[in-house]
Amino acid sequence: MKTLVTGGVRSGKSRHAEALVADLPSVTYVAPGPTTAEDPDPDWAARIAAHRQRRPARWTTLETRDLTAALRTDGPVIVDCLGTWLTAVLDERALWDSPTEEIADVVNGLVEDAAAVLRTRDQVVLVTNEVGLGVVPAHRSGRLFRDLLGEVNQRLGAACDEVHLVVAGRVLVL
Amino acid sequence: MKTLVTGGVRSGKSRHAEALVADLPSVTYVAPGPTTAEDPDPDWAARIAAHRQRRPARWTTLETRDLTAALRTDGPVIVDCLGTWLTAVLDERALWDSPTEEIADVVNGLVEDAAAVLRTRDQVVLVTNEVGLGVVPAHRSGRLFRDLLGEVNQRLGAACDEVHLVVAGRVLVL
Amino acid sequence: MKTLVTGGVRSGKSRHAEALVADLPSVTYVAPGPTTAEDPDPDWAARIAAHRQRRPARWTTLETRDLTAALRTDGPVIVDCLGTWLTAVLDERALWDSPTEEIADVVNGLVEDAAAVLRTRDQVVLVTNEVGLGVVPAHRSGRLFRDLLGEVNQRLGAACDEVHLVVAGRVLVL
Repeated sequence: MKTLVTGGVRSGKSRHAEALVADLPSVTYVAPGPTTAEDPDPDWAARIAAHRQRRPARWTTLETRDLTAALRTDGPVIVDCLGTWLTAVLDERALWDSPTEEIADVVNGLVEDAAAVLRTRDQVVLVTNEVGLGVVPAHRSGRLFRDLLGEVNQRLGAACDEVHLVVAGRVLVL
Repeated sequence: MKTLVTGGVRSGKSRHAEALVADLPSVTYVAPGPTTAEDPDPDWAARIAAHRQRRPARWTTLETRDLTAALRTDGPVIVDCLGTWLTAVLDERALWDSPTEEIADVVNGLVEDAAAVLRTRDQVVLVTNEVGLGVVPAHRSGRLFRDLLGEVNQRLGAACDEVHLVVAGRVLVL
Repeated sequence: MKTLVTGGVRSGKSRHAEALVADLPSVTYVAPGPTTAEDPDPDWAARIAAHRQRRPARWTTLETRDLTAALRTDGPVIVDCLGTWLTAVLDERALWDSPTEEIADVVNGLVEDAAAVLRTRDQVVLVTNEVGLGVVPAHRSGRLFRDLLGEVNQRLGAACDEVHLVVAGRVLVL
C-alpha cells in the first residue's frame, strides 16, 4: 500500500501517517526539510522535537532532500513532508526568483523521478500539506509555492494507492 | 446532472470537470474571467494556454461574464471558473471599494439570476475555488472575495445535483 | 450526540450546526467571541445580526468566553464558534506577543478543561473554522492562530462523536 496523507497544519496528518506504519518493522523516517541547525525558527525546532519524541526509537531517521534516493530505501518508508521537501529544493537551488516555467520544469522533473520509483514500491507513506484552499497569497513566493505543491500532490498522489485527507484529527479516504 | 466542482488551486478540478463532460457532443466551454489580452500576468496566460490545449478541438469556447446568458446556451455547458467570474464582475463594475452590503446585493442578484436558469437545466458543470480555508486575509479585498465566493458556491451548489470536492487529484462526492 | 462542525468561511457551517439542534427544546446558543459592542467592524456586526435573525426566538443566547462553564449549561448547547472563542481568549489575556509555548500551555489547558466536561455531555454542537489549508501566513499572529486552532479542533474533535466538514453547503461526516 502506498498512501499520500494530506491536510492542513495541526490537523493530525503526521500522527495518522505514523499510525499507518506503526506496526511495521524497520521503518525509515525521511525528513526532507531544512535541519534544525539550518533553520533558526524556534517554533519550527519545537515542532520537529515534538515529532521526533513521538516516533518509535527503532525507526531510522534519514535527513535528505533526495526524494528519489530516499524512496529507494529498503523496507517501509515514511516521508514527512513534501511541503518542507519542496521548500528545501527551492532554497537549495535558489529558484524562488527564477521564471515560473523554469522552476516548474525542475520540480516536475524531480517529482517524475520520484513517482517512477514510487510506482515500483510498496509500504510508502508520503505526508504533504494542502495549501491551496485560501485566497490568492499576496506574494509571488506564496502563489508559486501553492501552485507547485498542488502539482506535486497531484502527481505523487496519482502514483499512490490511496489519498487520505485529515481534518480535525479525522481521516477521510478519498 | 448538474455538478459544482470545487477544490484548491492545482488540485485537478478543471481536469475532473472536463472529464465529466468529455463524452458529450457539442460542449460549450465558458471562460468567464479576464481574457488573456486584459490580464498581463504571464503565469496566468500560461495557465490559460495549458487549459486550452487540453480541451477537445470540437468544444466551443465562450468568453463572457454574463453567467446567466452563458447558462442559457443549448447543450452541455462547463463554466471554469466562478472565482474568475466573481473577480471579473467586481473589476468591471468597480465594486472592490464599495460598501460590503452593496457589493453583496449586486453579486447575490447575479447569482440568483444564474441559479434560476441553472435549476431549469441539465448537463452543466460549474468549476469553482474553495478559498475560505485559510486564516483571515490581511486585506479587505481578500476578506471580501472569500466571503462572496463562499456565498456564491453555497447558492449555486444548492441548485446543483452534486458537489464534488477535488483534493490532490482525487474526487469526493459531497 | 456531540458534533464538531468545521469548514471554511461562508460554507454553511452555522446553518448546518443550527439544523442539528433545530428540533430540540430549550437550546442554549453560546456566542464566545467579542460582542458587537466590543468589535467596531461593521461587516462583523452585520454577520452577527444575520446569524441572530436566523435563530429561533425560543433559544437562549449566552455571551461568554468561559467555554467550560458554557458546556455545563443544562440542555442542548451550540457553540458558534471556536475561532472567535480562541481570538477572544488571546485578546483578553493579551497573549498574542507571548512566547509560543506559553500561549499553547494556556490554550491547551482551557481546551482540556472544556474537553473533560464535553466527554460527560450529550447534545452539544461545536462550530469551528478550518484555517490551516492556505499557505503559511505572513504574520506571526496568523501562523500562531492557525496552529492553535488546529490543535483546538483536534482535541475537541476527539471528545466528540462526529466531525462534520461543510463545503459549499454540503456536509461530509468524517
